[in-house]
Amino acid sequence: MTSRTGRHFLQIPGPTNVPDRVLRAMSAPTIDHRGPEFAELTLRLLAALKPVFDTEGPVVIYPASGTGAWEAALVNTLSPGDRVLCFETGHFATLWQRMARDLGLRVTLVPGDWRHGVDPHDVRRELDADPGGSVKAVCVVHNETSTGVTSPVPEIRRAMDAAGHPALLLVDVISSLGSIDYHHDAWGVDVTVAGSQKGLMLPPGLGFNALGPKALAASRTARLPKSFWHWEPVLDANRHGFFPYTPATNLLFGLDESLRMLAEEGLPQVFARHTRHATATRAAVRGWGLDVLCADERAHSSSLTGVLLPDGHDADRVRRIVLDRFDMSLGAGLGRLAGRVLRIGHLGHLGDLTLAGTLAGVQMGFQLAGVPVRPGGLDAALELLRAP
Amino acid sequence: MTSRTGRHFLQIPGPTNVPDRVLRAMSAPTIDHRGPEFAELTLRLLAALKPVFDTEGPVVIYPASGTGAWEAALVNTLSPGDRVLCFETGHFATLWQRMARDLGLRVTLVPGDWRHGVDPHDVRRELDADPGGSVKAVCVVHNETSTGVTSPVPEIRRAMDAAGHPALLLVDVISSLGSIDYHHDAWGVDVTVAGSQKGLMLPPGLGFNALGPKALAASRTARLPKSFWHWEPVLDANRHGFFPYTPATNLLFGLDESLRMLAEEGLPQVFARHTRHATATRAAVRGWGLDVLCADERAHSSSLTGVLLPDGHDADRVRRIVLDRFDMSLGAGLGRLAGRVLRIGHLGHLGDLTLAGTLAGVQMGFQLAGVPVRPGGLDAALELLRAP
Amino acid sequence: MTSRTGRHFLQIPGPTNVPDRVLRAMSAPTIDHRGPEFAELTLRLLAALKPVFDTEGPVVIYPASGTGAWEAALVNTLSPGDRVLCFETGHFATLWQRMARDLGLRVTLVPGDWRHGVDPHDVRRELDADPGGSVKAVCVVHNETSTGVTSPVPEIRRAMDAAGHPALLLVDVISSLGSIDYHHDAWGVDVTVAGSQKGLMLPPGLGFNALGPKALAASRTARLPKSFWHWEPVLDANRHGFFPYTPATNLLFGLDESLRMLAEEGLPQVFARHTRHATATRAAVRGWGLDVLCADERAHSSSLTGVLLPDGHDADRVRRIVLDRFDMSLGAGLGRLAGRVLRIGHLGHLGDLTLAGTLAGVQMGFQLAGVPVRPGGLDAALELLRAP
Amino acid sequence: MTSRTGRHFLQIPGPTNVPDRVLRAMSAPTIDHRGPEFAELTLRLLAALKPVFDTEGPVVIYPASGTGAWEAALVNTLSPGDRVLCFETGHFATLWQRMARDLGLRVTLVPGDWRHGVDPHDVRRELDADPGGSVKAVCVVHNETSTGVTSPVPEIRRAMDAAGHPALLLVDVISSLGSIDYHHDAWGVDVTVAGSQKGLMLPPGLGFNALGPKALAASRTARLPKSFWHWEPVLDANRHGFFPYTPATNLLFGLDESLRMLAEEGLPQVFARHTRHATATRAAVRGWGLDVLCADERAHSSSLTGVLLPDGHDADRVRRIVLDRFDMSLGAGLGRLAGRVLRIGHLGHLGDLTLAGTLAGVQMGFQLAGVPVRPGGLDAALELLRAP
Repeated sequence: MTSRTGRHFLQIPGPTNVPDRVLRAMSAPTIDHRGPEFAELTLRLLAALKPVFDTEGPVVIYPASGTGAWEAALVNTLSPGDRVLCFETGHFATLWQRMARDLGLRVTLVPGDWRHGVDPHDVRRELDADPGGSVKAVCVVHNETSTGVTSPVPEIRRAMDAAGHPALLLVDVISSLGSIDYHHDAWGVDVTVAGSQKGLMLPPGLGFNALGPKALAASRTARLPKSFWHWEPVLDANRHGFFPYTPATNLLFGLDESLRMLAEEGLPQVFARHTRHATATRAAVRGWGLDVLCADERAHSSSLTGVLLPDGHDADRVRRIVLDRFDMSLGAGLGRLAGRVLRIGHLGHLGDLTLAGTLAGVQMGFQLAGVPVRPGGLDAALELLRAP
Repeated sequence: MTSRTGRHFLQIPGPTNVPDRVLRAMSAPTIDHRGPEFAELTLRLLAALKPVFDTEGPVVIYPASGTGAWEAALVNTLSPGDRVLCFETGHFATLWQRMARDLGLRVTLVPGDWRHGVDPHDVRRELDADPGGSVKAVCVVHNETSTGVTSPVPEIRRAMDAAGHPALLLVDVISSLGSIDYHHDAWGVDVTVAGSQKGLMLPPGLGFNALGPKALAASRTARLPKSFWHWEPVLDANRHGFFPYTPATNLLFGLDESLRMLAEEGLPQVFARHTRHATATRAAVRGWGLDVLCADERAHSSSLTGVLLPDGHDADRVRRIVLDRFDMSLGAGLGRLAGRVLRIGHLGHLGDLTLAGTLAGVQMGFQLAGVPVRPGGLDAALELLRAP
Repeated sequence: MTSRTGRHFLQIPGPTNVPDRVLRAMSAPTIDHRGPEFAELTLRLLAALKPVFDTEGPVVIYPASGTGAWEAALVNTLSPGDRVLCFETGHFATLWQRMARDLGLRVTLVPGDWRHGVDPHDVRRELDADPGGSVKAVCVVHNETSTGVTSPVPEIRRAMDAAGHPALLLVDVISSLGSIDYHHDAWGVDVTVAGSQKGLMLPPGLGFNALGPKALAASRTARLPKSFWHWEPVLDANRHGFFPYTPATNLLFGLDESLRMLAEEGLPQVFARHTRHATATRAAVRGWGLDVLCADERAHSSSLTGVLLPDGHDADRVRRIVLDRFDMSLGAGLGRLAGRVLRIGHLGHLGDLTLAGTLAGVQMGFQLAGVPVRPGGLDAALELLRAP
Repeated sequence: MTSRTGRHFLQIPGPTNVPDRVLRAMSAPTIDHRGPEFAELTLRLLAALKPVFDTEGPVVIYPASGTGAWEAALVNTLSPGDRVLCFETGHFATLWQRMARDLGLRVTLVPGDWRHGVDPHDVRRELDADPGGSVKAVCVVHNETSTGVTSPVPEIRRAMDAAGHPALLLVDVISSLGSIDYHHDAWGVDVTVAGSQKGLMLPPGLGFNALGPKALAASRTARLPKSFWHWEPVLDANRHGFFPYTPATNLLFGLDESLRMLAEEGLPQVFARHTRHATATRAAVRGWGLDVLCADERAHSSSLTGVLLPDGHDADRVRRIVLDRFDMSLGAGLGRLAGRVLRIGHLGHLGDLTLAGTLAGVQMGFQLAGVPVRPGGLDAALELLRAP
């Protein structure tokens, strides 16, 4: 029997479940984006975003997706033909380096197995091999949404410093911001790239760049053509609470509410909750006798878990069964992982019992699909959720 | 650790989880209750309610709670001093007979143990003992929200017919309508009493009376004082799509949407879903080694399950732990069951994974409260949910 | 050409335009009406209602319409056969006395012309003529929604006191509360009867009784049968933030927001705004060369204006034209005023420009219907709206 | 006195008043953007957009503002150093040519007085002067939001054809689409650029490109760097109902509803309504004795009206008074018109009485600001609104 009644379980690693409060806030009537009420909203948002990125510097908000925010980070800091250093940590890292190529940059791509994060030794080695400083930026995905593997941003920074290399550090936190501990300033990141639809608990449609001083300096001489993404007019207009072109007003209403919710819960509590849910999910995967995709114990994502299926079993079939029978959306394996992996999202607005229901659904899906799993996965997770 | 983030689990046996669609429908601007658009709405609702009660007769909608609809059933059909026959099947049956007394009726209350439904033999015996016909109405709660026990309405009707007694049959379906199979006409019910906040998936605030021909005839001579509850002006005004006083417009918007949802799923599918969830829940209770409150295998409710706690264990403490730790509301034991019973609501807008999360939360709550339960409850439920 | 696009103008004297904020508040998920969050809500509401009624005493909230709140006022304070004194000030006063009769009370109805409020001399004369105190209650409609005429409650109270008569004073403020200055305690009112759908800016579905000490005392001996409307169980349960039966939770969410809005604007400002809009509307009516229905300059309502049409002109035709052509709902003449009067609601959530649009629509409606009006009505209103 | 209660009047020329239906649609829970339900939504939207642009070709939807859609039109069709022909019809035309320069294009800007549209003779002359075909695109703003002046797209096309010039025709319909008659295919437009926040009655956050066959052909060889804006991956993914990066799901929910509303009213009716409102607004301006900014009778915009203030009067002061006293937002003069012009938006979801209220507010604002106006403006508008 099919269960299509009741609340849908949206357990992909983003877009995440938007809280009712945020949906209601977004449904307020659109206001004049050049009026005083709007200016107050903008200034409040820009202030409230700083602790989320943990930065004293400016944050630029785009009426665009996170992918757009990647493009913004590149075109504001780089010039045609510049070299960037990328790491093949998964699907999204791969897309980012492809974007860099499309925009006329030269890319050095360090290959990877999609089960590990960026190795700081690789960073060091590549930069040491570039005494002339042709590499202008190092692009790192903090949390690979396609794999559930994180990369150690502070260690990467240290490797860059140790190499004495002037390249900028650009970090994608699209699926970690508001879910996994992150410090733009303290970690020495130059541009942080984010989106609205994950830990910020909003629908998609907003992209963010947090800007460090070195990035701002670079933007004054960068020569990639740009207009829509240009930081400068945004920073100018933001000073008075406005934008150089029409902003996505109702998503900003939602952001106002979601930032309030993050502040109410407290970021340390938010991060601890994500860690706890991730630990419970991995306990379930191991309880089933399956492998977590992430092969590095220090690199597990707190926002999603990739599950490797045994050879001969089709992850997409499991996902289809889970959707048809239990009305739950799970993440597919992307790119080279298609069909071999499913991804369980456990980020954003999520409570213990929704996670329990999620894991119950995954367990039943495996069983119905004939994937050989041990029955104890869910119980192992509950044991952790129950712990004090 | 406490989980207060994510969606609250409202697993009391009503009010139930109102679907997003219904909440959105209710948030449309209020309209003129004397205008043509409103008349269309009323006529559409009155037509769409008929299959839900399974009646060809009129249904009266009150801007009031289900308790008000009880009062309406009594004051429209009875006269001061009339005798009514009630059955102590639980808390709400007890409240109903108290209301009858408060309104100046004489009540014969057949005692009960709160673990069984109405016994048709009791009906027969009581009516046989009333050859003069002083009993004017038999009041039955179809599904006791305080216990999770149903009463066999068709058999009660047959017992009344067999006794050749002219009393009216008044049935409370507040927590069964739209969840458990019910047939106002075919079962020979004279007044069916309902509310909005259970199987109809609405917030509280609407009460209903479905009227059979004998009830309508009785209403012409009934002498209990009445004004607000008087059927006649409502039926008159309804003819043209209006109400004699201001109706609860926005709840009617919600009703329009929830009736559409019931029709989309199909009532037989709705009932089957409730049966399936109730079966799985009872499997969990038994898997934990606990007793279902309902002591009659034929009388299990499909909309809620009462769970008896072992002696010496406080159900309210379990409920408090579950609320504090897992952000789930469960039903308390009411009246004489206070502290000894908890009630799991599984009616209305509910999917398999929300039920799985619910049962996971109850299981963890028992464990945290030190109630001795076997661990297999949830697994037993999942086995049923997984079955084809 | 017809204009059915854009926001509907709901300019009946209630239900009024529900603010977006309130609609959004109402669309929050329903919560457990026996849980701690609900108790907090109830206690907050009960406290916030006191200044609106301007009373230190309790306010009872019913999940019912204002008509139900009338019934509650009667059945809690009176006994079968008691006499009540009513005044034929309009349609709703007439309905109230009919309700009193239906409930088994004896009514003395002082006739009226539907263009004046209650005359305190009539009160004095009727009570002087009742030395034995057979009159138990005086029922007054503060603001007649069917006519736009107010009655002088403080003067009525003084007339009762001057007569030394012990009758209770019951006052219907359904269309004045939150719009016109009112003081339950200071004016010596015993029961104030209110509803949600007018000055409280909510959809219909909540009724209110504010209770003075004499009314509470009377309720201890009153013998009209009652259960649903009984104050006592409500007051008992309210003490801890609960209700004796399921309350209309989502309307209470809305009430929470609308009380916040009234407090933000400030009641004196709210009343001044209504006075200003009423003055402007009467200026329009006179500018058109038509008569305001209210024939007593001291009795004009601030929440609606009744407009008398010249003989031979059908008010309902004007209303139909205004609805068809300009998508605005106006109030019809009720009862004996049917077809001769239209009513312009200007209460609740209303700004100057919506009032200007409303009066523009009425003016155009008169012109299209061939009602002979002078063109200066709207201009006269704007002159007042423009004044500092 | 200030009126800040009631509905705000958002009468800027966009963002426009978003209908309640659309806001509610947007508040539905975000869904999996890779699931079957999403694919159905996309395919439905892509089909429903065609009649709005009146094209058989593809329409690309961006999660971005209209300004982004401009950039998309340029980077997909042009190469570094290409020449484009722009016309200084107002502020937004000026911004567009600046964007072209910023992106590395060479711009020929035909100067203008901000009171006339593009003159087709200018187009002909400029193209005749370019026999070598160095001009690759002609950029025209169909309806200048900063002035209320339209440009004659079909005549421009004819001028291009008469010149036998191969340049592409790129047209910005941001403030005309869904308000003013427009035909992408029949008028021979190559790329049409649109946004969500005007005639489509949505919040800002979606941008559109409608693509003609010549534009698609050009995109295969265009060499401006692009990634986010690249049509090709969007068109590829759209084929199956998906997007190459996360789309702005909830805005798409809103688009689904707003396209339904446009279809319900019928585009011819929508255009006629806008024409009627614009005519009434100009009648008001002339009735006040003021000048409409647009100096060409054939070029009046149906979506907004620019009003020139007499010398020595500050338009922004009028706007501030109108906002403070009447809670209405009007459009400011932009760029070189700052302080000299105010703009009345009358596009999108708008009815006659809201327009009447708007014009009443403007009239009162002029009077309060001491701008010498004749009193008959509003009356002149109402006369037209009243006409059959």
